[in-house]
Amino acid sequence: MSHTPPKTMPPAHPFDTSYLTDAGDDDKLKEECGIFGVVGVTDAANFVALGLHALQHRGQEAGGIVTHDAEVGFQSARRFGYVRDNFTSQKVMETLPGPIGIGHVRYSTSGSKGQTAIRDVQPFFGEFAMGGAAIAHNGNITNANALRRELIERGSIFQSSSDSECIIHLMARSLQRNIPERMEDALRRVEGAFSVVAMTRTKLIGVRDPLGVRPLVLGKLGDGYALSSETCALDIVGAEFIREIEPGEMVVITASGIQSHFPFRRQPSKFCIFEHVYFSRPDSILGGRSVYETREAIGRELAKENPVDADMVCPVPDSGTPAAIGYSLQSGIPYAMGIIRNQYMGRTFIEPTESIRNMGVRLKLNVNRALVKGKRIILVDDSVVRGTTSRKIKEMILDAGAAEVHFRIASPPTAWPCFYGVDTPDRDKLLAATMTEDEMREHLGVDSLKFISLDGLYRAVGEAKGRNNSCPQYCDACFSGEYPVIPSDKVESGFVMKSAAE
Amino acid sequence: MSHTPPKTMPPAHPFDTSYLTDAGDDDKLKEECGIFGVVGVTDAANFVALGLHALQHRGQEAGGIVTHDAEVGFQSARRFGYVRDNFTSQKVMETLPGPIGIGHVRYSTSGSKGQTAIRDVQPFFGEFAMGGAAIAHNGNITNANALRRELIERGSIFQSSSDSECIIHLMARSLQRNIPERMEDALRRVEGAFSVVAMTRTKLIGVRDPLGVRPLVLGKLGDGYALSSETCALDIVGAEFIREIEPGEMVVITASGIQSHFPFRRQPSKFCIFEHVYFSRPDSILGGRSVYETREAIGRELAKENPVDADMVCPVPDSGTPAAIGYSLQSGIPYAMGIIRNQYMGRTFIEPTESIRNMGVRLKLNVNRALVKGKRIILVDDSVVRGTTSRKIKEMILDAGAAEVHFRIASPPTAWPCFYGVDTPDRDKLLAATMTEDEMREHLGVDSLKFISLDGLYRAVGEAKGRNNSCPQYCDACFSGEYPVIPSDKVESGFVMKSAAE
Amino acid sequence: MSHTPPKTMPPAHPFDTSYLTDAGDDDKLKEECGIFGVVGVTDAANFVALGLHALQHRGQEAGGIVTHDAEVGFQSARRFGYVRDNFTSQKVMETLPGPIGIGHVRYSTSGSKGQTAIRDVQPFFGEFAMGGAAIAHNGNITNANALRRELIERGSIFQSSSDSECIIHLMARSLQRNIPERMEDALRRVEGAFSVVAMTRTKLIGVRDPLGVRPLVLGKLGDGYALSSETCALDIVGAEFIREIEPGEMVVITASGIQSHFPFRRQPSKFCIFEHVYFSRPDSILGGRSVYETREAIGRELAKENPVDADMVCPVPDSGTPAAIGYSLQSGIPYAMGIIRNQYMGRTFIEPTESIRNMGVRLKLNVNRALVKGKRIILVDDSVVRGTTSRKIKEMILDAGAAEVHFRIASPPTAWPCFYGVDTPDRDKLLAATMTEDEMREHLGVDSLKFISLDGLYRAVGEAKGRNNSCPQYCDACFSGEYPVIPSDKVESGFVMKSAAE
Amino acid sequence: MSHTPPKTMPPAHPFDTSYLTDAGDDDKLKEECGIFGVVGVTDAANFVALGLHALQHRGQEAGGIVTHDAEVGFQSARRFGYVRDNFTSQKVMETLPGPIGIGHVRYSTSGSKGQTAIRDVQPFFGEFAMGGAAIAHNGNITNANALRRELIERGSIFQSSSDSECIIHLMARSLQRNIPERMEDALRRVEGAFSVVAMTRTKLIGVRDPLGVRPLVLGKLGDGYALSSETCALDIVGAEFIREIEPGEMVVITASGIQSHFPFRRQPSKFCIFEHVYFSRPDSILGGRSVYETREAIGRELAKENPVDADMVCPVPDSGTPAAIGYSLQSGIPYAMGIIRNQYMGRTFIEPTESIRNMGVRLKLNVNRALVKGKRIILVDDSVVRGTTSRKIKEMILDAGAAEVHFRIASPPTAWPCFYGVDTPDRDKLLAATMTEDEMREHLGVDSLKFISLDGLYRAVGEAKGRNNSCPQYCDACFSGEYPVIPSDKVESGFVMKSAAE
Repeated sequence: MSHTPPKTMPPAHPFDTSYLTDAGDDDKLKEECGIFGVVGVTDAANFVALGLHALQHRGQEAGGIVTHDAEVGFQSARRFGYVRDNFTSQKVMETLPGPIGIGHVRYSTSGSKGQTAIRDVQPFFGEFAMGGAAIAHNGNITNANALRRELIERGSIFQSSSDSECIIHLMARSLQRNIPERMEDALRRVEGAFSVVAMTRTKLIGVRDPLGVRPLVLGKLGDGYALSSETCALDIVGAEFIREIEPGEMVVITASGIQSHFPFRRQPSKFCIFEHVYFSRPDSILGGRSVYETREAIGRELAKENPVDADMVCPVPDSGTPAAIGYSLQSGIPYAMGIIRNQYMGRTFIEPTESIRNMGVRLKLNVNRALVKGKRIILVDDSVVRGTTSRKIKEMILDAGAAEVHFRIASPPTAWPCFYGVDTPDRDKLLAATMTEDEMREHLGVDSLKFISLDGLYRAVGEAKGRNNSCPQYCDACFSGEYPVIPSDKVESGFVMKSAAE
Repeated sequence: MSHTPPKTMPPAHPFDTSYLTDAGDDDKLKEECGIFGVVGVTDAANFVALGLHALQHRGQEAGGIVTHDAEVGFQSARRFGYVRDNFTSQKVMETLPGPIGIGHVRYSTSGSKGQTAIRDVQPFFGEFAMGGAAIAHNGNITNANALRRELIERGSIFQSSSDSECIIHLMARSLQRNIPERMEDALRRVEGAFSVVAMTRTKLIGVRDPLGVRPLVLGKLGDGYALSSETCALDIVGAEFIREIEPGEMVVITASGIQSHFPFRRQPSKFCIFEHVYFSRPDSILGGRSVYETREAIGRELAKENPVDADMVCPVPDSGTPAAIGYSLQSGIPYAMGIIRNQYMGRTFIEPTESIRNMGVRLKLNVNRALVKGKRIILVDDSVVRGTTSRKIKEMILDAGAAEVHFRIASPPTAWPCFYGVDTPDRDKLLAATMTEDEMREHLGVDSLKFISLDGLYRAVGEAKGRNNSCPQYCDACFSGEYPVIPSDKVESGFVMKSAAE
Repeated sequence: MSHTPPKTMPPAHPFDTSYLTDAGDDDKLKEECGIFGVVGVTDAANFVALGLHALQHRGQEAGGIVTHDAEVGFQSARRFGYVRDNFTSQKVMETLPGPIGIGHVRYSTSGSKGQTAIRDVQPFFGEFAMGGAAIAHNGNITNANALRRELIERGSIFQSSSDSECIIHLMARSLQRNIPERMEDALRRVEGAFSVVAMTRTKLIGVRDPLGVRPLVLGKLGDGYALSSETCALDIVGAEFIREIEPGEMVVITASGIQSHFPFRRQPSKFCIFEHVYFSRPDSILGGRSVYETREAIGRELAKENPVDADMVCPVPDSGTPAAIGYSLQSGIPYAMGIIRNQYMGRTFIEPTESIRNMGVRLKLNVNRALVKGKRIILVDDSVVRGTTSRKIKEMILDAGAAEVHFRIASPPTAWPCFYGVDTPDRDKLLAATMTEDEMREHLGVDSLKFISLDGLYRAVGEAKGRNNSCPQYCDACFSGEYPVIPSDKVESGFVMKSAAE
Repeated sequence: MSHTPPKTMPPAHPFDTSYLTDAGDDDKLKEECGIFGVVGVTDAANFVALGLHALQHRGQEAGGIVTHDAEVGFQSARRFGYVRDNFTSQKVMETLPGPIGIGHVRYSTSGSKGQTAIRDVQPFFGEFAMGGAAIAHNGNITNANALRRELIERGSIFQSSSDSECIIHLMARSLQRNIPERMEDALRRVEGAFSVVAMTRTKLIGVRDPLGVRPLVLGKLGDGYALSSETCALDIVGAEFIREIEPGEMVVITASGIQSHFPFRRQPSKFCIFEHVYFSRPDSILGGRSVYETREAIGRELAKENPVDADMVCPVPDSGTPAAIGYSLQSGIPYAMGIIRNQYMGRTFIEPTESIRNMGVRLKLNVNRALVKGKRIILVDDSVVRGTTSRKIKEMILDAGAAEVHFRIASPPTAWPCFYGVDTPDRDKLLAATMTEDEMREHLGVDSLKFISLDGLYRAVGEAKGRNNSCPQYCDACFSGEYPVIPSDKVESGFVMKSAAE
């Protein structure tokens, strides 16, 4: 989901979320959501809360849970902040009874994006003539502005600034007589990336868009079932991983079983390759292998492509760790923790004073000075986005007396924004959009800077022959600029696509 | 506005408002809302906050303000609690810029009514194709359930459980091309009582239903204008009282002037007589006279109709005070404060412990023991609803050694619930619905109990000939059972009207 | 108790209490404390909380309760804000078990006084070799600075900036072997005004200073006993008023009985006459008569001394009400509520915006415009301190079209500060310290201004022959400048006493 | 510092800290405090806040800062929770002006320990005749109970239940005429472990006990100086590490320079060896080498002493990581992250529901199932305390299909409690106190369990010849039971020392 603030903005909530900015992390792409649902269990909300906790890395700003109970009907709770802080007290969880529930965690906006309201926190709920439904959406609707205009013209009243709300209004206006069919109807009007978990009084529904850009997996949980963005959330609730929901598939799950069908026109799948690089948790399973192993393989591939003589391989913690281990194993250069992460930075300083803001990355990372002094260091990071953090890390490590600093990046240069559910800076803020690799090396001021090749990345994720350029096996738009779905709202508001640009 | 919780309730907010119950005051009818709006001033929100503060007696549970500013568009803030606690900090008020704004305060639900959500707090906002609008509603829509069903069937998604939300959805679906006309269109579908203050980007709109059940007045504020439930809120902002909005009138006010028209079929007006008795503030002006004077006149009338020999006339504070003064002036029996109100009970004890709950009215009122001992006391109260507080007061005053207790009530027996924007108990909880005056006297255990007659009340409010029984000059349904608008939702759900009952 | 901030201030708490200022009420003298204690009951804390609630008018800033239970020992809770907001939740009250407890409410500092810390909130607790003790103090120690210096010199560590803490340190250092004797020992070193309620594990102790400046009363509560600043707090817990503690008396109460003795040198009593005028609640009993009746008598006396031809007698609400009733009864001029108080101003606006601050008294009081227009009004107020509120009220009432305004004040001119536990402005801020009655009339801009005479006040409180000038029956220093105890700390820091001044 | 709750406990604060329990971490020894101070800088509080943030691993429950400014004197703020949440807002930091300041973070009590009050949060402040002083203490006073009894007997009033408060009372009663001398005087009466940072108006003081059990280092910060528990906190403020304060040394630092002397009788130093194993941050420098390198060396030593044939070496994150890397480097068995830590568990679930509590360690750690399946795993952890977490981890890893599990522990068996400022369970809760190594292996249900030897540990920390048993170079009481200072309070209350036990 994303925000498309209309010209006359609906009333903003005065809740100040600026403190949620994660200092130093505005130099990462940010997954925008995690979704989870269960049916056929006692106290569904407890499982949803645990699942969302395990998916917290996909969104830290806010979370919500909706449940249904025969006696009290639909109930919901939506809050800013972490799952562990909001959805664990007996008092809150008691308000969410019933055997079925879904939940959503959303990303932490960066300060410049403006304030988010509790109204924008999912799941969204709608009451239809045949009963209520709630939906939780991961991804981004690329024609949301056009849909919104059309729906308002017809008399729908939007309560949020979220693209995802379009789905529930389209459902409300569908002529179909049951909720799963209304949902199909609605999603056929929607362009872009969507993995959706939805619920009615008795049914848990999961859908992935025809390209399967965002992940969604199915698990068996006791006598019931669970749907989750990633397998790591199945582990935490003790569910058994059954399979991924397929691109374009819709599953309708009741306590008694699963029905599957494919309501959309079939297309070649385009799973987001960045889920392998950074978004997913290392203990999740993608394509039958742990994400950790894939990242270690990326590190090995990176070492093969870009070797260098050095004393130690250090990860930029924590996301560079598996690739650094792979690099070390491949190269034989010892692995060491040259940079230590402060564990008490889950969120950053609230309302930081000016002097603290200027301390930048030092609040979060510290160089192991005694260790790196005089050494030639290979620093392995997952990606370079703006390059701001990379520069600061380089400075810190040189201040500490390192003899040489070699950056090795576990993904190709990030040169294009993502419009499919990821928080990316504008194109002109992406270092790789405006500089060559050599200019970047100079800009960062390091002894060498090397990225894994796009083919190398494809090999590491299991495509032995590398990228199929005529029909790439993944969505890699952020590296290649080849967008599998035209981002029509963005084009309308001025974004220039690659083909047009060149 | 009121709540019409549908069978499958939309998700309730976990905010616990149970503590808001005003101990001992569940024995009063409660006005459900106050509304206020200004246009053509600098920093409209400050004036709206002051106006709502002056109208706080009309609703203590929550309040909201919407403003519009050319630069930032519509902004809103809605909060539980008092105006003085929510709408005074620089931080909040800065989020509400602009020269036009409206606001709303709503009543404090009694515990048994269930929890209210922030979603239910007005003003409500809707974004239409031609721009946004916000509305604040005082009154109650008696066909809200039917309207809601119809709107949902057509694909509207309700966000609250409030009857007032129907108005904004009807507006969204209207075929008219500007907002005031859409509002007329919407209100023509609405039955019941409504005084509405609404706003677009540039227009402040005020409407009263054809019967004019709820009050609404117009004032001149500097170069701009103000609309308010009562004149006391004009005083606080320094506005000059111009006139009452007439029953069935709609005014559309811009910075440059006022347009008035009458979009509804004309009917004989039926202003709520209980506004004179209890709801309005004594310093407000109704019908050219201060409410205080009217209440003093009620006291005089009561003394004429029901004299008794006694040592002192004491009000049940604070609402019985003006009538007690009138009774004293008429009867010549000295006025005295035999019961003292604790000033620190604005709201009652949060989450009261069991032993405190049982202390009942003693937390709030204390008898002036040394004063009343051995005396014959006339206690003047504004009304008897359930009779629970009256009984406790009687006990306290006898405990303190009073020789005799005579209750004199400044309104006729309250025998019927109100469906026009007042929080009343079910009919079977109303003492006067099940007992004769004599049974009530016995139930309360006092030496005498007398109510003012309905004719006496009409005389006191200025109708020299008393009530015109063929076409009463006021809505007095709570006393007479004669409902000027059929409460169709209630009838549908089983309420038996007087004609049918007898 | 009061604050004597030493030069190197102990660390202040960052709690911001500035919002506690009661708008418009900085023109009143403020009682600084209320104290309450019980022994021999189940769940003493519940009774203490109720008692403090009834004494809330004596201090609104903060409150505290200490209890003792055989199993968990001494427990305490101290909080900023109202009793009803802090000491009613099951969660808090469960932390305060046991059959004995004491409590304290303290005044609301005016903004200029600086911030108060939770450390300054009583009761104070000390652990001695023979067990713990807690004390709650109403009054002010006039030699606190000297005592503090001496105690620090000997190695005591002060935790608050309160004068009252001296008592507990003096007790800690006493050579006596039990706590009541240590308390006697300590209080013999103390000068000034003190009513103290204290407790050990099993004993409830009450003491009044030899002059009996501040009140303290004894009640029977079930099988146990209660001590309270005023009788109104006995009423709320259902205790029977036995008697006042006498000046200079110490009572030591256990579940089994009361021991009384007089540890100080006997002196003529000097009860604070302002308790009659303003501090005490009208339903409390002082000298066998309700405070309400005394105030009504003051009003009658005022009418005799200062008659004037007018149309109505109006109180400045709420404190002027009983005297206005008395004035009306004596003069035969009708009593009416020409000024209405907003009931939702228990505390004032939090963090008021600039425009609100300038609205002054209008937030709290509104003139009943329709009533006063064209009328000659007698306004009765309890006192004139700075005169700021009086001026604003006069303006409001003239704005509303009153023909004449006559102020009648139910106390003599307040020309001297109080140093015995009352929050008064510096002398040069007191209107009557710098102006004659005629100058004051002109300053306030009213048609006439009259104060009751000092003799008239003495007559009204029951001294038929008026004031005994050779040995006044009350402390009336605020009117007369005759201080019964030399305020030595103040003299040391530059205060000039009357004898010296003249 | 620690708590020595006296029989009649001082009043407990109702603040509920039970939520602070770090799930799964009650199986670690916990350092109880971190201390930091600066002098000679602008806005000292900002530096103190940063320093405390870097020392947060030494105490998560609460923190406090005291500063002194010529204009406003001493100021303090003490709060529950993380530094980043409390000491970063402009609003709080503005209350702490001045060029000198000290701060303290304290540990997170486990639930069973009972509630802590804000009164117990350091720094402690005392006002003496010659001015104020504040102290922050890391360590534990082993004769605190006896000192407390003596001080109370003399008339001191304790405000906390902390042992550290004795120091400030001893200072208050010292006959010396300046504060550093009073501090010497006080500390000569104190037994046990103490690193203290203190401040007067102008002086920053640092002291270590004669054995130097707890760390304390000195840094140069601009024109001023800093004292810190660890060097990592010097890094964050940009200070240069000068040297460690020596055992038994007192430094008195002003803006103009440092004076050093040794007020205690010299003794052989006994630095806590567990600081190397677990307490200190890996990027801190102890004995000229990074703690990370020492831990890697421990891992190498462990691999030499206890080799085993396996497929991968996995750390128990995060504390086992450096030793696991060392083990891998020494053994040649690949290092891999078989267990993934949830980054959003800084603190645990607030008020966890029952079902969540039972999920135990799964909230925090997840096994990388796809990675470990079928593999022989060496798990490296820093220590085994109760063994509860170790058991759960073993279960998780076997559930995930590991073929073999071999535990390797980077410290000797923890068989004795620490009384020098570490939160350890009672002796009978320590697994190694009641079981042999073989019994432990069986209890944990793993294929093998091996601890590093005490000599091996000494070698890894740099003692080439291992432990000098006649006079050990470190305090290793938790492993050896040889306490360098008799814990007299504990012995008095029944603790049986080794010599006596055997």
